[in-house]
Amino acid sequence: MTAYSEMSKLELLKEQELVCRRFEKLRDRKLNLNMARGKPGKAQLDLVSEGLLHVFKTPEDYVSDGIDCRNYGETAGLPAARRLFAELLGCRTEQVFAAGNSSLQLMYDTISKAYTHGLLHSERPWCREERVKWLCPAPGYDRHFKITESFGFELVTVPMTENGPDMDAVEAAVRDPQVKGMWNVPKYSNPDGIVYSEETVRRIAALKPAAPDFLLMWDNAYCVHEFEGAFVPFPDILSECAGAGNPDMAFEFASTSKITLPGAGVACFACSEANMDYMKKLIGVQVISFDKVNQQRHVLFLKDKAHTLELMRRHAEILGPKFRCVTDALEKEIAPLGIASWQRPKGGYFVSLNAMPGTAKRTLDLCKAAGVTMTSAGATFPYGKDPQDSNIRIAPSLPPLEELETAAEVLCTCLKLSALEKILK
Amino acid sequence: MTAYSEMSKLELLKEQELVCRRFEKLRDRKLNLNMARGKPGKAQLDLVSEGLLHVFKTPEDYVSDGIDCRNYGETAGLPAARRLFAELLGCRTEQVFAAGNSSLQLMYDTISKAYTHGLLHSERPWCREERVKWLCPAPGYDRHFKITESFGFELVTVPMTENGPDMDAVEAAVRDPQVKGMWNVPKYSNPDGIVYSEETVRRIAALKPAAPDFLLMWDNAYCVHEFEGAFVPFPDILSECAGAGNPDMAFEFASTSKITLPGAGVACFACSEANMDYMKKLIGVQVISFDKVNQQRHVLFLKDKAHTLELMRRHAEILGPKFRCVTDALEKEIAPLGIASWQRPKGGYFVSLNAMPGTAKRTLDLCKAAGVTMTSAGATFPYGKDPQDSNIRIAPSLPPLEELETAAEVLCTCLKLSALEKILK
Repeated sequence: MTAYSEMSKLELLKEQELVCRRFEKLRDRKLNLNMARGKPGKAQLDLVSEGLLHVFKTPEDYVSDGIDCRNYGETAGLPAARRLFAELLGCRTEQVFAAGNSSLQLMYDTISKAYTHGLLHSERPWCREERVKWLCPAPGYDRHFKITESFGFELVTVPMTENGPDMDAVEAAVRDPQVKGMWNVPKYSNPDGIVYSEETVRRIAALKPAAPDFLLMWDNAYCVHEFEGAFVPFPDILSECAGAGNPDMAFEFASTSKITLPGAGVACFACSEANMDYMKKLIGVQVISFDKVNQQRHVLFLKDKAHTLELMRRHAEILGPKFRCVTDALEKEIAPLGIASWQRPKGGYFVSLNAMPGTAKRTLDLCKAAGVTMTSAGATFPYGKDPQDSNIRIAPSLPPLEELETAAEVLCTCLKLSALEKILK
Repeated sequence: MTAYSEMSKLELLKEQELVCRRFEKLRDRKLNLNMARGKPGKAQLDLVSEGLLHVFKTPEDYVSDGIDCRNYGETAGLPAARRLFAELLGCRTEQVFAAGNSSLQLMYDTISKAYTHGLLHSERPWCREERVKWLCPAPGYDRHFKITESFGFELVTVPMTENGPDMDAVEAAVRDPQVKGMWNVPKYSNPDGIVYSEETVRRIAALKPAAPDFLLMWDNAYCVHEFEGAFVPFPDILSECAGAGNPDMAFEFASTSKITLPGAGVACFACSEANMDYMKKLIGVQVISFDKVNQQRHVLFLKDKAHTLELMRRHAEILGPKFRCVTDALEKEIAPLGIASWQRPKGGYFVSLNAMPGTAKRTLDLCKAAGVTMTSAGATFPYGKDPQDSNIRIAPSLPPLEELETAAEVLCTCLKLSALEKILK
């Protein structure tokens, strides 16, 4: 295959004709495949549900550290659930608040409480600030950006590098006291699958923000989510921040949504003990206790980090081939043409692809026309606007492998078609 | 027995000596009983947990209306869960949002969203209002009052009558456009156990508040929670409000916390379809989906209203004797003395007692000294301040019956002692 940039106009037109015909054939198959969201597939659900949902064997199983998990109480969660998350995240049990099923909700609520009541070091609730700005490493997670957008914050794009956010840009930005926080998915970032380098983590922990209540949102969604190779240890952001003189700057989030069941897992946040005391008081007004029966279910099922990592290896056996299916197709079909670039992640839930500038939206429209739904174009950028119209987030986890092969073919065909349209315009 | 008001000083002194001796004997038993919260007892948990927590028999049980309840999706909840709540509350399925384990959290979040984003008919988010006032029928639920207090609203006390809140006071108060809402526990109110009369419900639904975004908080916590006698039908506030030209005024809340498991149940809110559309958009930013596995567990276990009411009768067999134990003791020991009054509720989780003014705090301190913890004095009033220092909330559900007899004896003894101290001072 020849790169499109080296083809003559005649060759390009011929290629367009071929690709068009291929596209029409695919479209005629009336597919209905979804690669829009990092949604586990049925095989992953089946891997977990029988064991997790039948884990209570005797009445004693309802009791954890002397606490009847069926009744009210223990707002911050079962001690055993807090211990389990502390081991997974590498922090201390007292720093963990084990909650309900959604880490996104915990993130939203943390920002909402900053807005309505202020954080530990806030001079006033953020709703009383004239303006709040927020750092968004991009491409990033659309649901993160949407939360801060919904509170009227001004979203400031920070470029992602292969080592994490561009730290020169971040260090410069936080000198502005209106910059109140920053989103992060530090391990297998959404969507790039990048693992922040140790240097990046160290520089983040050592930030000197002008805002006394700068909120480092550390969404460790994929902390044990390798689908290729062994578990990759990762620095504990809480001790990094404490060591750098910023003990109260970080709130870390995690959940078992992609360890056990999406939407029926357990989520947690972790923070300094001072933050914990402050947040417990605010959360104590909002809720009596989270679902401790589900927490106990997870404690009994996952047991500890070693046992959790074993389960993650079984998820990897399902997920790994799906990711390879997509990246193999891209490498075979697209790489030689020089019309797109992508990472080859070893964990997380996404492949992030940069198409020829100005073709992402068109590519996704074509995919949709051929029955393959992907995350909408621009979604990985603040306000849903990709300035280059280039980034495409691929979520290969949901479709079964055999359907994925077709979906990858659709994607490659649409990438070619939109690139050819662009070049030939 | 003679009423204290009719005793001579000498008789009172003699009575005081007897009661004092009784108190000391009880104190020496070093009891440790808790009647502070409406917490179900172990027998109630055992009634439910085996069936509820082992309800999934086959893989088909994970699928409801074609939806795999184990995966992400369906932000507003499983249709079957929404149908179940709609039947319990007497509203329409489309009006129900089935969520997580805590109705308190849904109430907090509704008010929080009014504060941060505004409600459907708000001119601006409430954080931009100069002042927000809130109607609190009292005695009422301390956690309700605390939510509105935590947002800095000015709490306005409305007296409770035996038919519900004093509607003349409410109708007058809502003429103030700064009055933005009102708390209600309409059936078996917390703590009085009063059922709002039909006339009261009608007048509430027909309120003409000056605020376009007046928020009627309708916490139907005890909608099927009779512990004496048959199920008592109750008007559907949503259709009442719609009929009175206030379709978007009410948000109703309920949960299965005291039907199945406290803290591991399913909560919901119900509102007009217009409010539902508005709230779905806001909640969609906060959470992907609530725990649908737990929703499905409840759908399979509770089945429908008739089956739920059967379960409630079994709860009643446990709860009824506990309430009678307390009210019988009060009627035997306290009624003849004329030093307190109380309701004899047929549902809910509390007995509300009005002690001689100026003695509630002292009574509860004495109870505590004798090892019986009750809700702190004043808790049933805004800002935790009972102007009469009279109301005591008794929660008889947690202790086993045999301990409850002792607890009731402690309470009666302390009521006498504090009354005698007051009279003889």
